[in-house]
Amino acid sequence: MRSPTRTPLQGLPERVEVYEVGPRDGLQNESAVVPVEVKAELVRRLVGAGLRTVELTSFVHPRWVPQLADAEQLLDLLGPFDGDLLAGVRAPVLVPNARGLERALARGAREVAVFVSATETFAQRNLGRSRADALAMAADVVGPARERGLDVRGYVSMCFGDPWEGDVDVAAVVDTVVALAEQGCTQLSLGDTIGVATPGQVVALLDALDAAGLGRDRLAVHFHDTYGQALSNTLVALQQGVTTVDASAGGLGGCPFAMSATGNLATEDLVWQLHGLGIDTGVDLPALVATSAWLGERIGRAPASRAVTALT
Amino acid sequence: MRSPTRTPLQGLPERVEVYEVGPRDGLQNESAVVPVEVKAELVRRLVGAGLRTVELTSFVHPRWVPQLADAEQLLDLLGPFDGDLLAGVRAPVLVPNARGLERALARGAREVAVFVSATETFAQRNLGRSRADALAMAADVVGPARERGLDVRGYVSMCFGDPWEGDVDVAAVVDTVVALAEQGCTQLSLGDTIGVATPGQVVALLDALDAAGLGRDRLAVHFHDTYGQALSNTLVALQQGVTTVDASAGGLGGCPFAMSATGNLATEDLVWQLHGLGIDTGVDLPALVATSAWLGERIGRAPASRAVTALT
Repeated sequence: MRSPTRTPLQGLPERVEVYEVGPRDGLQNESAVVPVEVKAELVRRLVGAGLRTVELTSFVHPRWVPQLADAEQLLDLLGPFDGDLLAGVRAPVLVPNARGLERALARGAREVAVFVSATETFAQRNLGRSRADALAMAADVVGPARERGLDVRGYVSMCFGDPWEGDVDVAAVVDTVVALAEQGCTQLSLGDTIGVATPGQVVALLDALDAAGLGRDRLAVHFHDTYGQALSNTLVALQQGVTTVDASAGGLGGCPFAMSATGNLATEDLVWQLHGLGIDTGVDLPALVATSAWLGERIGRAPASRAVTALT
Repeated sequence: MRSPTRTPLQGLPERVEVYEVGPRDGLQNESAVVPVEVKAELVRRLVGAGLRTVELTSFVHPRWVPQLADAEQLLDLLGPFDGDLLAGVRAPVLVPNARGLERALARGAREVAVFVSATETFAQRNLGRSRADALAMAADVVGPARERGLDVRGYVSMCFGDPWEGDVDVAAVVDTVVALAEQGCTQLSLGDTIGVATPGQVVALLDALDAAGLGRDRLAVHFHDTYGQALSNTLVALQQGVTTVDASAGGLGGCPFAMSATGNLATEDLVWQLHGLGIDTGVDLPALVATSAWLGERIGRAPASRAVTALT
């Protein structure tokens, strides 16, 4: 009897879409300044390693996120969205507002992403506006983008914990997700921005969203590994029927709101688990590990991925 | 609606016994030489943080494990097993053979632990004897220890992967566990010594052991975090009815058989999850985090626990 290639665990999908956020969410939260040529090479290597969903950058004002001030230059280096590199790839870009959408449309983006905090305090402290105003700003993007035929992802941050509020009201999260869905978002990503969630909270939120009419097929999960919980939380989400999982190569990124250098769930640790469970991802793990090791040298920080550490 | 204190996840226990292996399995695999006074203080602090099961040391020949050559001196510093510090604590010591058992009995140990590899290659390479010979050596400990009224834990290593053999035959693991159970072991700890397992393998092994008549109440799980899988594997084991989980404070220890500094599942990351799931452990997490931070300074290595990093 050999170890099973198909798992005896119940309810797992046959295939998972790994949504790579390293170039955007990861680099946005790294203190190192990364040259645009390195960013372009990172995207090329990620695509070369089999990732078919890579969030490229953010069309945000440089005052807010100086790390991503080179969005246009990066796209120049990568070539057009229907060019050789990106044609077969889902390549969203983050846009915070109508101005960002204009910039994305000018470049031919096929998918954009907006973000709203589930909590009032984080909305006020991080963005200086109420959650209602943030939803209104998202609506300025979602409607026009959908009218032009773009897919739109809605990020909901602080779904499980807030650095100021602590526990988060599940009803507030549901309200926020439903509001973005009603605006027309094609996918909603549930973010544990400070990485405090445990698996019971994940199931509770998915159940509450189900009761509100939001099916698992429109959802993605986005866990940070601040307390080591990201992969466990992902596993229960998969068992609940979610099939899109956000992760960053090498665990890139940190969370500026917790005293930790730990960022997103590391893509390699996720892929190790998925492949071990017999779930297809299309990712070439050794190529991905080599990519994260290469980037780690460029930014002068060892990757936070356990699998990268073990395999390099 | 607040976040749930009881989890909507199915089949979880109300209480989990955290079996702390840091002073033995952790320090055994640290390259730093740790003064015996520091080891004693570590045990005192672990007990002070609410841990009620702490594996203290190993009565192994110093040639094999020089890091634990101070077993007698450590027990001198801790006082007798029925003394103030240890009376209320499950405090096993590892013994590899009849000579080790003599030393443990002379000190009044109430519980000992033996170990056997599930794979032939690891038995040969790590201990220089066949698995059958290793089982015979364990029998020289288990029978006499049980006759004297001691509890005996049996560690089975390489249950999910072997550095030389790769995949591990589930039937060979079951045979090894059953053999130790039939010798009289009161608890069997299933070890993923190189940290490669994913959750499907855990369920498959537990199912196979169930079919062989070994109930979950005699089992413990022992995961290393080499590829970031330890906590996910633990979660599915809990859902399958296992209630004893091995972990090491601060993720102490490495695995000498993989190219990684990552050791056992970190106790803090485990406790964060268990408490988040509403499961009682008796552990005071801030006191445990402070202990691991303190030890990290003593051994000159930052704890591998995500939770310790976030909370210090």
